[in-house]
Amino acid sequence: MQHLVAAIDIGGTNTVFGLVDFNGKILLKENVSTEHFPIPEDLVAVVCEHIKKAMLQFSKDYELVGVGIGAPNGNYFNGTVEFAPNLKWFGVVPLAKLFSDKLHVKTVLTNDANAAAIGEMMFGGAKGMKDFIFITLGTGLGSGIVVNGEMVYGHDSFAGEIGHVIMFPDGRQCGCGRKGCLETYCSATGIKRTYSDLLMSHHDKSNLQARVADAKYIYDKAMQGDKDAIAAFDQTGEILGLALANSVAYTSPQAIFLFGGLALAGDFIFKPTIKSFEENLLNIYKNKIKILPSELKENDAAILGAASLIIKELKTEYRP
Amino acid sequence: MQHLVAAIDIGGTNTVFGLVDFNGKILLKENVSTEHFPIPEDLVAVVCEHIKKAMLQFSKDYELVGVGIGAPNGNYFNGTVEFAPNLKWFGVVPLAKLFSDKLHVKTVLTNDANAAAIGEMMFGGAKGMKDFIFITLGTGLGSGIVVNGEMVYGHDSFAGEIGHVIMFPDGRQCGCGRKGCLETYCSATGIKRTYSDLLMSHHDKSNLQARVADAKYIYDKAMQGDKDAIAAFDQTGEILGLALANSVAYTSPQAIFLFGGLALAGDFIFKPTIKSFEENLLNIYKNKIKILPSELKENDAAILGAASLIIKELKTEYRP
Repeated sequence: MQHLVAAIDIGGTNTVFGLVDFNGKILLKENVSTEHFPIPEDLVAVVCEHIKKAMLQFSKDYELVGVGIGAPNGNYFNGTVEFAPNLKWFGVVPLAKLFSDKLHVKTVLTNDANAAAIGEMMFGGAKGMKDFIFITLGTGLGSGIVVNGEMVYGHDSFAGEIGHVIMFPDGRQCGCGRKGCLETYCSATGIKRTYSDLLMSHHDKSNLQARVADAKYIYDKAMQGDKDAIAAFDQTGEILGLALANSVAYTSPQAIFLFGGLALAGDFIFKPTIKSFEENLLNIYKNKIKILPSELKENDAAILGAASLIIKELKTEYRP
Repeated sequence: MQHLVAAIDIGGTNTVFGLVDFNGKILLKENVSTEHFPIPEDLVAVVCEHIKKAMLQFSKDYELVGVGIGAPNGNYFNGTVEFAPNLKWFGVVPLAKLFSDKLHVKTVLTNDANAAAIGEMMFGGAKGMKDFIFITLGTGLGSGIVVNGEMVYGHDSFAGEIGHVIMFPDGRQCGCGRKGCLETYCSATGIKRTYSDLLMSHHDKSNLQARVADAKYIYDKAMQGDKDAIAAFDQTGEILGLALANSVAYTSPQAIFLFGGLALAGDFIFKPTIKSFEENLLNIYKNKIKILPSELKENDAAILGAASLIIKELKTEYRP
């Protein structure tokens, strides 16, 4: 019998779940709307039903040995989702317990960026690395920090919020209530604000354009040689490079991986980021730390991350 | 037979060394001038001679089981001191090997701030803590980061340089060649610059005073109610609080310990630091992370740190 794990990624809009083997092969991938389930127990029931049914067809060769969950505001220590602003669920939800009660296997939960970081370590570009930082450039900026082969959770499981490092004390208003957080500059939302600011700054009449722009639009514009779009990437990379250089002073990683929509812009984002990174690095770190694109496929990262979380734990347990 | 370790702290001016038992009791403390030994082998010979002689008087009850070394630019992985700007030694010095060749016991080396952090964990206020940050406010700002009970070394052993996080991209010139590093504001040197700036700003004629001021002088002035001195502490604390709030976003420690001359200024430095810290913390971290004075005695910290480094390793090895 081979081992399979159930991987579940809870998103504000959709919940993706699947079955994954210990080599990272995805045998099943499905999704349901998270929003349709204001009561978490109902979502858990539906997802577990699907997983149980699917396991029937694999039952000859495979055994379900664990569940990994990636969720916003996921607390690894308690297996809970706590006050997640993007979910309709209230308060503290003991999500890991809800799943393990139904599926009767070890269940582990962490936040989505941490899960993806572990995915990068097990099945992506961080294979064999013991010290790296994983950055997701999505609506916000998420991060997972790995030190000496282990995820950094901190004393309360909420370590790794690099998106909320204050870069400019009187900078842009952040959704967290403070000002100048990194993610207000370096994220899909951040570059959109930068691009809008650039258009506004020379009284570009196409305000509408500025408002509808998303990261993909800005990328397409940059590809067409649009100066503001290219400048928006440059400014984003300049701040990101500084922030990553500062991050190195904490954990001195071997590499930093960039994941998410903005990271797909290739040289437009990597070139200015790496330039600023090297310029701002302390001498002892210069020219030895790589900034790399994630090797996880955009579509599989959430599932692989959640799967990796539980696979890593089970592998550690099985170790003699 | 009880176990003893030799503890050695290499400073730019003096090298302090001693013998310490596993309870942190210092049985011997001596020092020699580092500057008198431009060839590291000569320093090692003299220190080892002293240690061997001292061991003779303890040889009935004690056995030497290890050597711990704290040194500037110490590389834990290689046991080397690398291009230390404050030492007269050139290039890469295999200091741990030089000691173990003479004393024939396990020898471990790290930088001084890391060693002191481990000292805080074994014999100070961080006893029982698994996640904390240790900050030394001396001539510069040194730091040691502990995650899940282990020192963070990073991929090259040079993690934990919080003093060189760039706080203000066009800020004060730092000795490292870059601008705006935290230690140019938050250190004995930093507060001296801030105090001088304050005096200059209202054309205070006592330029000489500004030039001769050291942290102790500014503290004494603050005690007398001097507004500029108090303002210098306030500004230092404001920046330190912001930097520490940002640090929490990396490793979410249970506590942050402040050590060194500036930390001895008590409320003058702690009050503005804690105020700024709480103001700048992300909501999820507020009111749960302590900023505390180190419980290591100023005079013993270097020796206890170096001793702790090797004691921690030996205890781990002996663990069944």
